[in-house]
Amino acid sequence: MEEAAVRLDQVDLHPALRDSILSVPVFHTEVMGRFPDAISFAPGAPNLTFARGFDPGRHIETYLRHLCAERGLSQQDARNLLYEYGPSRGVINGLVAAALRRDLGLDVADRAVVITVGAQEGMNLVLHALLPSPDDLLAVVQPCFIGISGAARLLGVDMVPVNETERGVDLDGLAAACRAARAGGRRVRALYVAPDFNNPSGAVLDLPAREGLLRAAEEHDILLIEDGTYGFTAAPGAGLPALKELDRDGRVVALGTFAKICLPGARVGFVVADQQVAAADGTVRLLADELAKIKGMVTLNTPAISQAVIAGMLLEHDGSIAETGRAKSELYRRNLALLLEALDRKLGSGQPAGVSWNRPAGGFFVRMRLPVTADARLLEICAAKFGVLWTPMSQFYLDGSGTDEIRLSCSYLEPAQIEEGVARLADFLATLG
Amino acid sequence: MEEAAVRLDQVDLHPALRDSILSVPVFHTEVMGRFPDAISFAPGAPNLTFARGFDPGRHIETYLRHLCAERGLSQQDARNLLYEYGPSRGVINGLVAAALRRDLGLDVADRAVVITVGAQEGMNLVLHALLPSPDDLLAVVQPCFIGISGAARLLGVDMVPVNETERGVDLDGLAAACRAARAGGRRVRALYVAPDFNNPSGAVLDLPAREGLLRAAEEHDILLIEDGTYGFTAAPGAGLPALKELDRDGRVVALGTFAKICLPGARVGFVVADQQVAAADGTVRLLADELAKIKGMVTLNTPAISQAVIAGMLLEHDGSIAETGRAKSELYRRNLALLLEALDRKLGSGQPAGVSWNRPAGGFFVRMRLPVTADARLLEICAAKFGVLWTPMSQFYLDGSGTDEIRLSCSYLEPAQIEEGVARLADFLATLG
Repeated sequence: MEEAAVRLDQVDLHPALRDSILSVPVFHTEVMGRFPDAISFAPGAPNLTFARGFDPGRHIETYLRHLCAERGLSQQDARNLLYEYGPSRGVINGLVAAALRRDLGLDVADRAVVITVGAQEGMNLVLHALLPSPDDLLAVVQPCFIGISGAARLLGVDMVPVNETERGVDLDGLAAACRAARAGGRRVRALYVAPDFNNPSGAVLDLPAREGLLRAAEEHDILLIEDGTYGFTAAPGAGLPALKELDRDGRVVALGTFAKICLPGARVGFVVADQQVAAADGTVRLLADELAKIKGMVTLNTPAISQAVIAGMLLEHDGSIAETGRAKSELYRRNLALLLEALDRKLGSGQPAGVSWNRPAGGFFVRMRLPVTADARLLEICAAKFGVLWTPMSQFYLDGSGTDEIRLSCSYLEPAQIEEGVARLADFLATLG
Repeated sequence: MEEAAVRLDQVDLHPALRDSILSVPVFHTEVMGRFPDAISFAPGAPNLTFARGFDPGRHIETYLRHLCAERGLSQQDARNLLYEYGPSRGVINGLVAAALRRDLGLDVADRAVVITVGAQEGMNLVLHALLPSPDDLLAVVQPCFIGISGAARLLGVDMVPVNETERGVDLDGLAAACRAARAGGRRVRALYVAPDFNNPSGAVLDLPAREGLLRAAEEHDILLIEDGTYGFTAAPGAGLPALKELDRDGRVVALGTFAKICLPGARVGFVVADQQVAAADGTVRLLADELAKIKGMVTLNTPAISQAVIAGMLLEHDGSIAETGRAKSELYRRNLALLLEALDRKLGSGQPAGVSWNRPAGGFFVRMRLPVTADARLLEICAAKFGVLWTPMSQFYLDGSGTDEIRLSCSYLEPAQIEEGVARLADFLATLG
C-alpha cells in the first residue's frame, strides 16, 4: 500500500511518546532480535512449559458448569454471560474475593473488587481516580516497574522517587518528599510500592518495613498503591502479609494480576478498592465503584472469555490462586535457585571485585551491582562478544541513579541455559576487573 | 467486612466522575431494574439468540490450526501464542487487515492496524496520541456516542459540538468552530464522526456528505476519527464507502469493533492508523506504532484468547467480517423493520401531532422526536404507567439540546416484544396530545 500522505509533526503527539521509558519493551525485542543466539536474562517472560497442557476451552466449560451448579444459572444464561457485554466492574469478582480470603485471609467484599485488563489497566484506573489534579504527586519506590512510571507519564502525573533501602523504604526520604510537596503548594497523594519481589530489584519488604510504611502513610495522610504482582511466587507459608492485610485504616489500594502464576495471555488483573467515597449529596460509595465508572471510559469491560478462563483455572484448584499457581511458582523458584547457585559458583570468590547481587527467594528478578557503568553500550559489547543479555537498571530509576546495576531474570529459561548464561556472564565480568 | 475507615473527599476524585454522562449505563440498569416487567427500547444490547451456538473453544482451535497450516507454526508455538504476553499492537492484525481489504477494498498494511480492547480503548488511545495539549480541541458530531464524550472528559480533552443535519454534518458549523478555536489561540485537531447508523441517531452520511467532510478536513487541516462500529449492519451491497476508503490524504483514523456483529463478549476492536509520523531524528514511523506504545501503558495488550476467538470466527467465514456477521446483521435489520412497521401502523396517522422518527436501514437505533420534553421525569411516568422504556437523547448532546428526542433500540428484543412495546409507546404518546 501507499503510506498516507499526511505527516504528523512529532511535537503534536503525546509527550510520553518521546520518553525513552516507553520504549523499553521495544529495546528488549530489538537487542534480542539482533543477537538471536545470545542467552537472555533480560525479559521477565513466562515459562512456556505450562503452555503445553493449556486448554482454554476446558477452563471456560469448568466455569460455565460452576455458574449452573453453584449460582443456579440455566445453561443458556451461563453461556450468555460469555457472549454479552459484561459489567465494567467484572464478572468473576466473587471468585477473586473468595480466593483472596482463602489464600491471604483478606476480608474483602465482592463489590470492592474491580476486574481489569491486567494490573496495567489497574494502574491506569487508580492514577485516573486518585491523582486527577496537576498538584497531586505520585511517590514511587525506586527502582520501579516501568508500567507505573509509563502510565503516570502518559496521564501527566508527576512523580517523586523514594529509595528502596536495605531495610525497606526510605521513610525519611518519603517524609522529605511530602514536606517539599507541601512547601511547593502541592501534595503527595499516594505511594506506589511493590513489597513482594519488586520488579526490577527482587527486593522484599520485611514485616517491620511494612508496618512502618503503613504508619508513615497515616502520618503523611497518603494512600499506598500496593502492587502484589509477585506475591504468590513465594514458597508456601513463606509469604509475608500483604500491606492490604495489615491495613486497618483503608490506606491501601491493592493491585493484583493472574499473569505471573496463572496465565499471562488472559490479561486478567484486579484492584481491591474498599475505601469509602462520600458524594456531594452525602451518599457513600466505594472507590471500586468509581474505578468501574472510569473503566467504562477506558476499556468498557474486561473480556468475559478471559475472565472465564481464569475462573475455570481457579475452580480446578479449589478456588485458590496459590494452588492454581503452585507448580509455576515452584518452577520459578527452582530457576532462581539455579541462577543464584551458579552465580555463587562462578563469581562467589569475590573476583572480579565490585560485583555483588541480592538473593531473592521468589519473583522473577535478581539485582546485580557492577564495578562499571551498565549502559546500553556495555550491553552491546556483552551481547556481541559474550552472547549474554541483561537489562540495564537505570531505566527503572526516576532520578538517573542505578547506573551500575543490572537486572537478571531467568523465569523462562531452561536449567542448561541458566548455567551457560552465568558462565558467559562470568567471562564477561572478568574483563571488567 | 468492615468498610475501610478512610473517607476520600469527593473533590479529590477525577472530575469526570461527577459528570452525569459517565453514569448513563448505570441509569439504564437502575431504571430497568425498577421496572422489570417493562419492555425496554433503551439498551443497544446484543441479541442473545446467537449465544446459543457459541463455542469459544472451537473458534480458538480453528485459529490454532490456521497458525499451523498457513503460517507454519508448530502446534506448540501456536499454543504458546495464547499463553504468552503478546505484542501491544496485537496478534491477529494480518487477519483483520485482510478482512478489511476483502470486505471494504481498504488497502491497509498489517502494521497500520492496532488491535484494541473494543473500540472504547481505540478511542482512548487515539485521544491520548492526537490531542495531548490542552490547546487541542476535539470536534464531535452530535448527537454522539457517550463512549467518545466520556473518554474525552476522562482525559481532559475539551470538545466542541458540530451538528448532524438532514444533509450530513453541519460544515458551516465545523468551519465556525475551527475559526473560533484559532481566534482563541487553540485549534480543532480532529472531528469524531460515526458515518454509518450513528449511535444514538441512526443517521447515515450519504456519499456527497462523506466527500464534503473529507474536503472540509483538508481545508481546516484536521483529522477525522471515523467510528465504523455499525458499518457492517447494512444490507449486503447497501453499505456506503467508509471515510477511510475515500481518504486520499491520510486524514482519517478509523476505529472498528467486532462487538456488534461478531461477539460483544470478546471485547476486540481495532484502529487503522496509517499516518506517517516524523520523529525528531528524521525517521518515519506509523501512527499505529505510536498507538501501540501508548497501549503498552494502558492495557499492555489485548488478551490473545479473545483475539483468537475472533480470528477463529473470521476463519470459519472465509476471513470476512461481513460473512461472519451476516446472520446477525440480518436479524438486526429484521427487528428494525418490525419496529418501523409497527410505528407506521400505530402512529402513522399523524396523531398525536409532533411525533416523528427517522427510518434507518441498519444499526441499532431509531431517533424519535416528541412534542414535549423527553427527560427522566417523563421516562419515569412512561415506565410506571405504560410499561415501556426508552433513552432520553439530551445526554448525547454536548450543548443541552436534543431535549425533545428519544432513542429507540430493538436489537435484543423478540418480535412480539417489539409489537407490544410499540403498542404501549403509542398509548403513552396519545396522552401527550
